[in-house]
Amino acid sequence: MPARLIESLATTEPLANLFSDESVLQAMLDFEVALARAESRAGIVPKAAADAIQATAKAANFDVAALARETLRAGTPGIPLAKALTAKVRAANAEAARFVHWGATSQDVADTALVLLLKRAQPLLAADLARLDAALLRLSNHHADTVMLGRTLLQAAPPVTFGLKAAGWLAAIRRSRERTESAFAEALVLQFGGASGTLAVLGDKGLDVGRAMAEELGIGFPDAPWHAHRDRLGALVASCGLLTASLGKMARDISLLMQSEIGEVAEPGGSGRGGSSTMPQKRNPIASAVTLAAAIRVPGLVAAFLAGMVQDHERGVGGSQAEWPTVAAVIQATGVAASSMAEAAEGLEVNKARMRENIEATRGTVFAERAAFLLAQKMERGAAQQLVKDAVRRAEKQGRHLAKVLAENPKVTEALGLKALRELETPEGYLGVAEKLRKRLLAPPDKRS
Amino acid sequence: MPARLIESLATTEPLANLFSDESVLQAMLDFEVALARAESRAGIVPKAAADAIQATAKAANFDVAALARETLRAGTPGIPLAKALTAKVRAANAEAARFVHWGATSQDVADTALVLLLKRAQPLLAADLARLDAALLRLSNHHADTVMLGRTLLQAAPPVTFGLKAAGWLAAIRRSRERTESAFAEALVLQFGGASGTLAVLGDKGLDVGRAMAEELGIGFPDAPWHAHRDRLGALVASCGLLTASLGKMARDISLLMQSEIGEVAEPGGSGRGGSSTMPQKRNPIASAVTLAAAIRVPGLVAAFLAGMVQDHERGVGGSQAEWPTVAAVIQATGVAASSMAEAAEGLEVNKARMRENIEATRGTVFAERAAFLLAQKMERGAAQQLVKDAVRRAEKQGRHLAKVLAENPKVTEALGLKALRELETPEGYLGVAEKLRKRLLAPPDKRS
Amino acid sequence: MPARLIESLATTEPLANLFSDESVLQAMLDFEVALARAESRAGIVPKAAADAIQATAKAANFDVAALARETLRAGTPGIPLAKALTAKVRAANAEAARFVHWGATSQDVADTALVLLLKRAQPLLAADLARLDAALLRLSNHHADTVMLGRTLLQAAPPVTFGLKAAGWLAAIRRSRERTESAFAEALVLQFGGASGTLAVLGDKGLDVGRAMAEELGIGFPDAPWHAHRDRLGALVASCGLLTASLGKMARDISLLMQSEIGEVAEPGGSGRGGSSTMPQKRNPIASAVTLAAAIRVPGLVAAFLAGMVQDHERGVGGSQAEWPTVAAVIQATGVAASSMAEAAEGLEVNKARMRENIEATRGTVFAERAAFLLAQKMERGAAQQLVKDAVRRAEKQGRHLAKVLAENPKVTEALGLKALRELETPEGYLGVAEKLRKRLLAPPDKRS
Amino acid sequence: MPARLIESLATTEPLANLFSDESVLQAMLDFEVALARAESRAGIVPKAAADAIQATAKAANFDVAALARETLRAGTPGIPLAKALTAKVRAANAEAARFVHWGATSQDVADTALVLLLKRAQPLLAADLARLDAALLRLSNHHADTVMLGRTLLQAAPPVTFGLKAAGWLAAIRRSRERTESAFAEALVLQFGGASGTLAVLGDKGLDVGRAMAEELGIGFPDAPWHAHRDRLGALVASCGLLTASLGKMARDISLLMQSEIGEVAEPGGSGRGGSSTMPQKRNPIASAVTLAAAIRVPGLVAAFLAGMVQDHERGVGGSQAEWPTVAAVIQATGVAASSMAEAAEGLEVNKARMRENIEATRGTVFAERAAFLLAQKMERGAAQQLVKDAVRRAEKQGRHLAKVLAENPKVTEALGLKALRELETPEGYLGVAEKLRKRLLAPPDKRS
Repeated sequence: MPARLIESLATTEPLANLFSDESVLQAMLDFEVALARAESRAGIVPKAAADAIQATAKAANFDVAALARETLRAGTPGIPLAKALTAKVRAANAEAARFVHWGATSQDVADTALVLLLKRAQPLLAADLARLDAALLRLSNHHADTVMLGRTLLQAAPPVTFGLKAAGWLAAIRRSRERTESAFAEALVLQFGGASGTLAVLGDKGLDVGRAMAEELGIGFPDAPWHAHRDRLGALVASCGLLTASLGKMARDISLLMQSEIGEVAEPGGSGRGGSSTMPQKRNPIASAVTLAAAIRVPGLVAAFLAGMVQDHERGVGGSQAEWPTVAAVIQATGVAASSMAEAAEGLEVNKARMRENIEATRGTVFAERAAFLLAQKMERGAAQQLVKDAVRRAEKQGRHLAKVLAENPKVTEALGLKALRELETPEGYLGVAEKLRKRLLAPPDKRS
Repeated sequence: MPARLIESLATTEPLANLFSDESVLQAMLDFEVALARAESRAGIVPKAAADAIQATAKAANFDVAALARETLRAGTPGIPLAKALTAKVRAANAEAARFVHWGATSQDVADTALVLLLKRAQPLLAADLARLDAALLRLSNHHADTVMLGRTLLQAAPPVTFGLKAAGWLAAIRRSRERTESAFAEALVLQFGGASGTLAVLGDKGLDVGRAMAEELGIGFPDAPWHAHRDRLGALVASCGLLTASLGKMARDISLLMQSEIGEVAEPGGSGRGGSSTMPQKRNPIASAVTLAAAIRVPGLVAAFLAGMVQDHERGVGGSQAEWPTVAAVIQATGVAASSMAEAAEGLEVNKARMRENIEATRGTVFAERAAFLLAQKMERGAAQQLVKDAVRRAEKQGRHLAKVLAENPKVTEALGLKALRELETPEGYLGVAEKLRKRLLAPPDKRS
Repeated sequence: MPARLIESLATTEPLANLFSDESVLQAMLDFEVALARAESRAGIVPKAAADAIQATAKAANFDVAALARETLRAGTPGIPLAKALTAKVRAANAEAARFVHWGATSQDVADTALVLLLKRAQPLLAADLARLDAALLRLSNHHADTVMLGRTLLQAAPPVTFGLKAAGWLAAIRRSRERTESAFAEALVLQFGGASGTLAVLGDKGLDVGRAMAEELGIGFPDAPWHAHRDRLGALVASCGLLTASLGKMARDISLLMQSEIGEVAEPGGSGRGGSSTMPQKRNPIASAVTLAAAIRVPGLVAAFLAGMVQDHERGVGGSQAEWPTVAAVIQATGVAASSMAEAAEGLEVNKARMRENIEATRGTVFAERAAFLLAQKMERGAAQQLVKDAVRRAEKQGRHLAKVLAENPKVTEALGLKALRELETPEGYLGVAEKLRKRLLAPPDKRS
Repeated sequence: MPARLIESLATTEPLANLFSDESVLQAMLDFEVALARAESRAGIVPKAAADAIQATAKAANFDVAALARETLRAGTPGIPLAKALTAKVRAANAEAARFVHWGATSQDVADTALVLLLKRAQPLLAADLARLDAALLRLSNHHADTVMLGRTLLQAAPPVTFGLKAAGWLAAIRRSRERTESAFAEALVLQFGGASGTLAVLGDKGLDVGRAMAEELGIGFPDAPWHAHRDRLGALVASCGLLTASLGKMARDISLLMQSEIGEVAEPGGSGRGGSSTMPQKRNPIASAVTLAAAIRVPGLVAAFLAGMVQDHERGVGGSQAEWPTVAAVIQATGVAASSMAEAAEGLEVNKARMRENIEATRGTVFAERAAFLLAQKMERGAAQQLVKDAVRRAEKQGRHLAKVLAENPKVTEALGLKALRELETPEGYLGVAEKLRKRLLAPPDKRS
């Protein structure tokens, strides 16, 4: 029986299917077909043999359990796959069997199969990120004027806008999305080098065959085989690490804002989402939890990939053999985080009233900085800060507003005037360049004002 | 279709099955059964209801794909499982359905299920480690006198014995095996706390029910629920990290000793093991590669677990949700490493002749230290070292033995005598306390001489 | 100039000093002195030579900058140290210089020096942990009856006591403290093996010399040298990882409870603690921030150590050379986390009134579970849950208490009675076995009731 | 006393100095100066005040130990620095003191200081990488025709050229160097946001002041403050992770090729490099060891950075506080790896004769693949492989060359002819497209043939 449950929070369903046995097996078979076809084009393999190989190379024809078992003995899925394919082809066309896997090495199969899977993962990931982008853009624009507490070290700070906050999430996610897309473009290249990476078996035809294979498979043709140079995959894994971390930051913010005592946003509810098995009143931040779980797991997986990059000579002992589960887990974690945050953003409930109430509940103390700076233009800064600090303490002790307490101090009223004091606690008046920053965050780099 | 291929080098088959959907699901159902039975013993749930729950709680009755899908919406497998079980029970016995999952929270189910799986993993791991222990013990005793090069920073160094080397591997593995066993003992405890960990629903019967459940399930009853305190699991994961690293060290040594140019040991061959898809002459260190792959992956997984231990309040957002795949991967990686090294040790071919040849091939230069120390007893040490260094250079340049070159120097012959020079390059004479150390490594701590 | 600033949040001052150049250098010199003295006791080195070596081996006599520079060329601090010490001794006593470093290898020096530093770190760490233990014990006992919200997934849940929460922190920290102490005991052992780990230069006297050295240095004498078997250090590093994670969990809880909107606890203030450079009203959770920073850094450091444990043959290329900064950083991070949490716990301000207000502010919805379970004893459980869920929604919409809303439903009043409804929202009545669990958490394992 | 020794293998001297207290402190002061000057340009701060601040802001004026101590209480170096600077300025010019740190927050100082240090690290790193590039390019071109064994899974495989191997190293390093340079370009941007990141204190002048500061400091001006969005730093750290891993791969190959039994290359020797404290014959791969140590440490540090990126709201608790030591360690590790590999490549001794001998020592078995493929063009492939496999076994058992054994089989001589058999074991004839690949690896992407 499959192992979906153990990873039920660690992947989306499409990405689980992407790394299913059938999908992985077919990707390896696709390599063998492309090899035979390319070699047929190059006159190395008879067309009939290539056709026979292609006709046989269907995942459904193979016993996956046996292949998995033999893989552990062979140290690579490429060897049992090539054997099994040869046997099947031989049954249909003995002559064609001679040409199966011609000139390739087992790691050519395994690596190219992984690349083919990644190629199919890319649009799945991109689609969720596009949904997320659209939803955050909408949220940010819609809430350009929605004031809320800034919070630093989890303490109330001068106000920001929810539009700025959403724009900050989006800009970070966009940067890492771009990194991920560049990394995909770099990593989606054929692996084809033969035993020592020189394609020696193919004489001087190796490059031509390789180019044709890349064309057949719709992936890039790299400068050279990369059996023991895994930096392109590593860059993809690392970019997913950055992306997942930025998604995790958004998830943490949402889960914090959803706290019962804060209540400024809520993930969308609906059938089966975020309930409790025992507490009917709960609305749990499930999308955030799933995303934070991904953000917790991925850094260690990135480290595992990087640690495995130190590979011996032309093909190493241990390094590349460690990669498949790591890469699959990273892609799946990134995917489930992107999809969860997309869903959260699309249905996010924003409680503007509560945001304003939470500012109000600080009784103006978050404007202490403002008061201190205003006063510091008229008096020594240390004195201004001390004066405000004292007023904050009094306000807190007496449960009164800072502006009221300050207004009792003639030094203050003289320095600032009553109007400034009245406006001291107006969030809209103390947003600095928040809106400009929001627009800069959303604009393309060359369109920033 | 399952995802066995992608992890085909990352687990043994029994451990793959352990974390299969059926197995995970049954473990969760076993929790619900134990809960109902314990509550029945405590007079909370009617016996008939407990019986009905038990009769229904068979993995085969449930739709795993649906559960996995709903888990991602619920944020925990416990909620859809409890719902599905309730529905199934209701169909059989409406009254009994009231008592399903009574007083438990979803994380109680998920955590205890994980513990139950770990309980079944323990003997699987122990069996492979016992095989490995026996094989290494035999190798060490058999090769107590088998001399071979010491190698430091991958350079030839004074001789050791293969028996000492094997004893070093074994002692390290034993230490971590003991750590792992302690960690299992500590971690195999019930999770049962209800919504906030106080078992409030059960009034003052919570501890009694918990004790009975632990008894039903054959696991320990801890001081208190540990929803947000994951150190016991963490200690198990970390101990597996240490064990896998020590297995990895053994694997690295074997793979280095198997190098074509060294050829001192060989992993067992046999059908499908270690061949190449294209190079008929090869005998690849597959068990070592699989083990090193585990040793590469596990440190990052340990980090992921530790990073997730910082969990909020009574149950956190993200931390525990990240654990299942991490723990499963660590246990499976440890298992496949243990099993691979057991297989390698059991069939290891040791080439004593080649070991001696490789010492011989250094033409005595690995005894330079010995010569220098002998000389330093008669002359200034710096001078002795310089003299030997010069002789080593000459020996290397001329392709002669160090002893011969040294014998041409009257200062040396005078200081050491001809007999000492003749014996200079005898490995057996320069093993120090190797055999004593070997015995100490294999003896229990209180039996070391 | 030193590099204290860059690590100013990453270590306590005593632990910074512990890994200072002077301290590290003296530890290496202490090894050389112990070696000479032990060899003198064994009749290998003249007493006068041992005395001369001891007289010279003072850190102040050496040029640290030069040693650091040469270390990078030699690949180990042991070589330049031995050279420099030999030169210094020679200047005082040419004969004695012959015996410096006799029979040892450079890694013997480096590893034993690290062990000596760890030996001095142990009581520093223990003292902070003892302070923390006492403070948490006091807090837990003092607040055995202090009710507060349970919080799961950052949502309000049925009440717990602050005493239980503090006991949970303490029990986890105690478990890891015990792990750390065991790991120290195991790791504080001499490294002494000579070139290949057989102590060949010392003939059959190696063990005697080693035992005497261990005695001189006040550390253990292991079964055998452990140049390439680093699991004992690894176990120490991993146990620090677990400890830091549990400290991090406590810090996260504190920082969450300190949120302006929650305000249930506050870290101690005082000169220079937790202020803001611009916001006079702020009281930042600095001890928590420092501890969480440690909890963020340490998992990756643990992974780095584990990854480096795969070391080649008798001494590896790369692994052990990576350890010093990793071990130092882990110990320092653990220390600063322990010390920060000790300080936080000792001065923690607990706002009992605010805790009760926050329960009250949920208007009874956190008792929905209680109501549902009470009702489920009289009616079908699904119906009970639905009924309560509807009441919760109404209560939330209308800003009324759950009990009031429920009291309007005759089915409820009939099933529960008015008294039960009146008491529904009393936190003290819905604590389950909280106090029993608290006592169990604080009791030694064999004294748990 | 500084802590150079503990990190003596973990950094170059210039990079150690870069993160010294003086350097870090001055970078923070440079921020304050730029702030004052920019605000003076914007008419916010009097020019005389800015001048006074600039005159005072010299690292030598401050007590680093006190600052480090206060940093641990404040949770950030920015607060005690601003206080100390204010005090110093006040002593010189009381009016000017009012304007110190005007509108900035403590994390603005800390982050920008880190950026300034990274800006100075970039050319140090680039210089070593340029040296390495030149040396590897020279080695690759010089050894374009130098044949050597390919080695896969540490087993002898068909030949490659050393030129190809060096080109593979270089191409991977170049890719990561480019990634690192892009990441530097992206990360070297000002941090300036004030309390909540809106620059509220500065009204609508925030962006102008920021732009002027970036100009003053010679760094970029980003879209917005990035207090809680650390992906740009993360991308730099990750790119260093990839670079260090590729340097580690080169180091592993060198250390393997330097094994006594292989002896194909040697790191440069020279005063104090690679000797042993006790073994005069040794030439240790020190540059490789240092580089591998970096490659072991960095993945965990990358994980630590990524894990810390999940930061709360406008400024988090724990995340950013963890970064300084991590970033410093990553940059230093990358630097010492780059510098070590540059030194190794510049002085690498390549033993062409030994390379050929090692091929020869396989007695043609590495050409078994070639024989099998040649035969498979004339007979069934399975039969061809079996035939060659048998011949390999015979050759190994009898200590004869594969070609000789094959020549005894009439099926073979008939199929291949004597000429092909004579040339079977000529490495130069079985290099496939090695030279084309080498050129492709060294060519810019758009110049590949």
